[in-house]
Amino acid sequence: MATFMDVHSGFVGVSGAQLREAHDADLAIEKDEGVHFDRAWLDSESGKVFCLATGPSREAVIRIHERAGHPAAEVYEITAEV
Amino acid sequence: MATFMDVHSGFVGVSGAQLREAHDADLAIEKDEGVHFDRAWLDSESGKVFCLATGPSREAVIRIHERAGHPAAEVYEITAEV
Repeated sequence: MATFMDVHSGFVGVSGAQLREAHDADLAIEKDEGVHFDRAWLDSESGKVFCLATGPSREAVIRIHERAGHPAAEVYEITAEV
Repeated sequence: MATFMDVHSGFVGVSGAQLREAHDADLAIEKDEGVHFDRAWLDSESGKVFCLATGPSREAVIRIHERAGHPAAEVYEITAEV
């Protein structure tokens, strides 16, 4: 199981409730790919969202985000954390 | 107190020990600006590092990272998280 940080763009003006809704859409289907979306952070001014996830592969993370309706612009596999 | 996610580039090939060293350099001086660097995630293949911090302002986060020797390419103020 690996850890991933992914980055979305275009969430300008999005509320906390809308972030929760988007996150819930991931959670609803994440088990299909053995992924878990742990946390997400939004900057509604720049429209950036950062998601921290665990899963078997980058592709699995990408597929869940795509199916949930918010494809990630970038997905990074984490090699170390503190 | 606000929450920030910042992004560094250029950490290609960096080890977990080197990430810890860089993080410790922030921790050593963060109190000067009332900042706290909570966590950091590295992808040593792309060279990206994501840091989660709390502090009084974006500028305070920027100043600590600059003084610690690793200026952040981007600093985002978090408006919501899940």
